[in-house]
Amino acid sequence: MVTGATGFIGSHLARSLADRGDEVHAITRPGSHHSVLGDERVTLHEHDGTTRHLVQIVADVQPGAAFHLASLFLAQHGPDDVEPLVRSNLLFGAQLLEALSSARVLYLVNAGTSWQHSRDGQYAPACLYAATKQAFEQLVDFYVLRDGLRATTLKLFDTYGPRDPRRKLIAALRDAARTGEALALSPGQQLIDLLHVDDVVRGFGMALERTAGLPEPRHERWALRGERHSLREIVAIFSRVIPTPVSFGSRPYRPGEIMVPWEADCDLPGWQPTIDLESGLRRLLAADADGGRT
Amino acid sequence: MVTGATGFIGSHLARSLADRGDEVHAITRPGSHHSVLGDERVTLHEHDGTTRHLVQIVADVQPGAAFHLASLFLAQHGPDDVEPLVRSNLLFGAQLLEALSSARVLYLVNAGTSWQHSRDGQYAPACLYAATKQAFEQLVDFYVLRDGLRATTLKLFDTYGPRDPRRKLIAALRDAARTGEALALSPGQQLIDLLHVDDVVRGFGMALERTAGLPEPRHERWALRGERHSLREIVAIFSRVIPTPVSFGSRPYRPGEIMVPWEADCDLPGWQPTIDLESGLRRLLAADADGGRT
Repeated sequence: MVTGATGFIGSHLARSLADRGDEVHAITRPGSHHSVLGDERVTLHEHDGTTRHLVQIVADVQPGAAFHLASLFLAQHGPDDVEPLVRSNLLFGAQLLEALSSARVLYLVNAGTSWQHSRDGQYAPACLYAATKQAFEQLVDFYVLRDGLRATTLKLFDTYGPRDPRRKLIAALRDAARTGEALALSPGQQLIDLLHVDDVVRGFGMALERTAGLPEPRHERWALRGERHSLREIVAIFSRVIPTPVSFGSRPYRPGEIMVPWEADCDLPGWQPTIDLESGLRRLLAADADGGRT
Repeated sequence: MVTGATGFIGSHLARSLADRGDEVHAITRPGSHHSVLGDERVTLHEHDGTTRHLVQIVADVQPGAAFHLASLFLAQHGPDDVEPLVRSNLLFGAQLLEALSSARVLYLVNAGTSWQHSRDGQYAPACLYAATKQAFEQLVDFYVLRDGLRATTLKLFDTYGPRDPRRKLIAALRDAARTGEALALSPGQQLIDLLHVDDVVRGFGMALERTAGLPEPRHERWALRGERHSLREIVAIFSRVIPTPVSFGSRPYRPGEIMVPWEADCDLPGWQPTIDLESGLRRLLAADADGGRT
């Protein structure tokens, strides 16, 4: 069972699980855009928002394990975002934990964020989104203690790859390369950790294997670190693949911009990235040129 | 500003603040019973549940500090309790933090529970209620980091005193003493930590002083420990004050019953209890005999 399967990483994960022959069920919200997922092998279950309904869905499906990737991401928030952040990142997660508990599903792989941590690894949330992720981990711990759940939270940094519905850096660079219109950027000294979605998905698969092999109930936390470069270096690598006009310093850094991400000396054991940034970008841009679905 | 001012500890705290001449504002929910508070010196603000409204209330009041005691307490929960627990203990708390941030209120004293901790002090929630309390602390940390909030969470054990609307042990013992009908109890070996509400309220006052004196933004956690006895000993002390029929072992222990509470070697600095259990019980039962409001 996958939550967030209509998002970037969740959709890649769901397709990858289906590719290896797993029966895949996705929990969706009314109004989710299924086009990102676009895979008939994945059974969709539209959740009406109540705990009862989610309990019923999980009881009907009886999944062997759950991947929880659904979340509302906001780098900054205002008063009107507080309720949506709590609803998406805490209430829905709590409902999922309750539903897994009711159906005696024992394995959970959860997506966290490097933004929960300062450079040295202490809890130091960069934004309310990251704080809700940390808060959710405390709820997971309760179900681990009471019900014997085995859980792994994978802390993600920035990610990229084909079929990405998010308007993030790589998408903006592709637009600039296409249109020739210079992309306005900050001064560009911040370090960014970028990982190809195929490496992320492989990490989630390995995390499930590890979780299912835990000898006792436990909630482990691991990182999936990618390649770390300054924004300026990333633009230089991108421009080696396709020349791209940018304008450094025409925007300020974001309030609370993370200049040096968490150093995370705790990658998921046995996992390491296999796609270096330049190859990953070449692959992404070649797919564009072929008119492939990107 | 006080949340939870219509509850047991919150109402004692609000009256105590009014007694010392503070202007006291209470945030209430539609349908709150104000009879427990019963103090015209406290200005009530009925919150409609939205973040916007709470932001507006706090902006209008411009409190010097906030005491956050509102919560939904459930020792055990079922699927239908998940949403109310998240709403009361996480969403409302998040809205309060946002409202304090908007109004630049810098001091918060928050009520936590000893049930967040195992005997040795590790995070080991005894119930989902305790997990939501721990989760809320992670949200507090974000506002401490971003906005310079100074916060103290006081971890409470069991409490007792006059005008207690909760149906807990002491109330049940009083009923048994009055009616002569034996109170059905567990085998009674579990240790219980009991603190008189006047000592609790003094602790909250001292916590605010300490919080307001913190030289830098920080979220401190301290305990307010009372007197620790087995349930059997508590019944013996109670029976010294007034003979009370009980029947040990006619109920099982509760699932997940805490036999030895957190040992909490971290009482709020400078604070210690002043009312021993036998005196506190004598005072409580004398008020009954006088027909005082209890």
